[in-house]
Amino acid sequence: MDISSIYEPVQSGLEKVEERLWQLGAADSGALKELLQHVLGQSGKRLRPALTLLVGKACDCDPESLVPMATAVELFHTATLVHDDTVDGSALRRGRPTVSSVWGGGRAVLFGDYLFALAAELASTTGDLRVVTLFAQTLRTVSSSELGQSLRGFDLSQTKQRYYDSIASKTASLFVLATESAAILSRVPEELVVACRNYGYSLGMAFQVVDDILDFVGVEEDLGKPVGADLLQGVVTLPVILAIECNLGDNRVVQAVAQRDAQSLRALLEMAREASLIGESYKVAGEFCSTARACAERLPEGRARQSLIDLTRYVTERKK
Amino acid sequence: MDISSIYEPVQSGLEKVEERLWQLGAADSGALKELLQHVLGQSGKRLRPALTLLVGKACDCDPESLVPMATAVELFHTATLVHDDTVDGSALRRGRPTVSSVWGGGRAVLFGDYLFALAAELASTTGDLRVVTLFAQTLRTVSSSELGQSLRGFDLSQTKQRYYDSIASKTASLFVLATESAAILSRVPEELVVACRNYGYSLGMAFQVVDDILDFVGVEEDLGKPVGADLLQGVVTLPVILAIECNLGDNRVVQAVAQRDAQSLRALLEMAREASLIGESYKVAGEFCSTARACAERLPEGRARQSLIDLTRYVTERKK
Repeated sequence: MDISSIYEPVQSGLEKVEERLWQLGAADSGALKELLQHVLGQSGKRLRPALTLLVGKACDCDPESLVPMATAVELFHTATLVHDDTVDGSALRRGRPTVSSVWGGGRAVLFGDYLFALAAELASTTGDLRVVTLFAQTLRTVSSSELGQSLRGFDLSQTKQRYYDSIASKTASLFVLATESAAILSRVPEELVVACRNYGYSLGMAFQVVDDILDFVGVEEDLGKPVGADLLQGVVTLPVILAIECNLGDNRVVQAVAQRDAQSLRALLEMAREASLIGESYKVAGEFCSTARACAERLPEGRARQSLIDLTRYVTERKK
Repeated sequence: MDISSIYEPVQSGLEKVEERLWQLGAADSGALKELLQHVLGQSGKRLRPALTLLVGKACDCDPESLVPMATAVELFHTATLVHDDTVDGSALRRGRPTVSSVWGGGRAVLFGDYLFALAAELASTTGDLRVVTLFAQTLRTVSSSELGQSLRGFDLSQTKQRYYDSIASKTASLFVLATESAAILSRVPEELVVACRNYGYSLGMAFQVVDDILDFVGVEEDLGKPVGADLLQGVVTLPVILAIECNLGDNRVVQAVAQRDAQSLRALLEMAREASLIGESYKVAGEFCSTARACAERLPEGRARQSLIDLTRYVTERKK
């Protein structure tokens, strides 16, 4: 499934988001300009701003009026990536050197703060207090989740529920910001706001489950970062939890994970493949996608709604 | 001049700010609670929340209604300190170990983000879009200034004007947030909002000039951090700029600063004392204080206004 055909109904809005991002990079001079162009020029999927614009279009709102909010959501997402890479000491993101690896950790911290500020300023230009409050709440949810994960550290007794709570906070919350803010700004009835919120939540959950699967079985060239990176960072994801739950290979999974080296990782990958844990994990992602689809179907029929439905397929089929 | 007598008119409001901060620390469990209590329990001067409450009181607003905004300003300030200490690798703050030195840099980054989010959420509870927008703009101003300073690095050709621009962004902007938000929320006429904004700006400028002087000539036990810490970090402050401007000791100042070691620092301190550059710097702080005082005098007479005036003296006379 081709992402550009899914985005087609909001193509002109997305171009305006790109323009906005480009203007931010061009407005400043010198070293800050370089930094902005480095992160904003990276052609990410722009999935979150596309969600804002598609939900707006499905809710019969002029998608162009949502360009500032869509840009804010992308900047927010970029800021979290810059800080995450700094905290994790990651060298690569989307196949390119991370900010912290090029400019150093200190500057990456300050640059991430700057991106959060740009995002908050854009969100406040919507003039909608409910959206601004949702923005701040989302920032708290994301940062407290990342912090909690870091403070807990490597926890092999983590349950499935805790895993879901964790990805809800760290990933789905930003999808919710993208979709719920669009519904609020489109002034649709409250039950549709709730449907858009739930759509964002479920799609975000599926997205992160697939991300965690790809960290396990993806191809480095597709991912733009090393396979197994999360696991080596001590992030316990769904395939690992399933392996531990079914006590795969007696205690070998726990040991392999606890070792956190490349050889143990390969052994774990082998075990996971044999026991079809990857298939199990994809099933979970598929369930979240069904819920997302059902939520999208509550919106008025049209091309934008169809794109929101198509995205639920794209999210599980993607390879990067 | 005793700070507690200056704060007296808003004492009960300040206690409510402390309660709010304490509740934040108590609400969470485990490691996050420890982190919150570590930074929020540090008895800073609470100068910024006191400014919000005093301006509100002088503008005839119920100071208690300003408690959320005052708390937001203190959390914002704390977040910037946590990130600054992380970026600078500082070991001590107010005589206690910094978050990054105890919990590590990565967690300090995430914890700073979390504090920014708490602050933004509290600011949004004011329900005032102008205040929320000012909050976001201030965050951008502060972070872009810190980032710019880091990207420029050690710049001995820095002019006085550039120094003023830099401290306006990094320090005075947060004082402006504290005072202007209080005036906006007090619904006073626009000319008083401007007076409160200018008061915050001028007081903040004086505060930072004195801070930079104390980094030069302060006493380590008072400051709670090593003397000369900024200079050793490569931050060029007013006494150094004055020394370079008057070409003190031919080229020795530039050399001493460029060396950035303790011995060069001592030599520089000696030179600065001999040439009464510290006195010159205090004169600059005094001028900003006069402006601040004139702005405060535009507010209605009363004890709160008197405290705002007294603060202009306190800021220059303080030893820490």
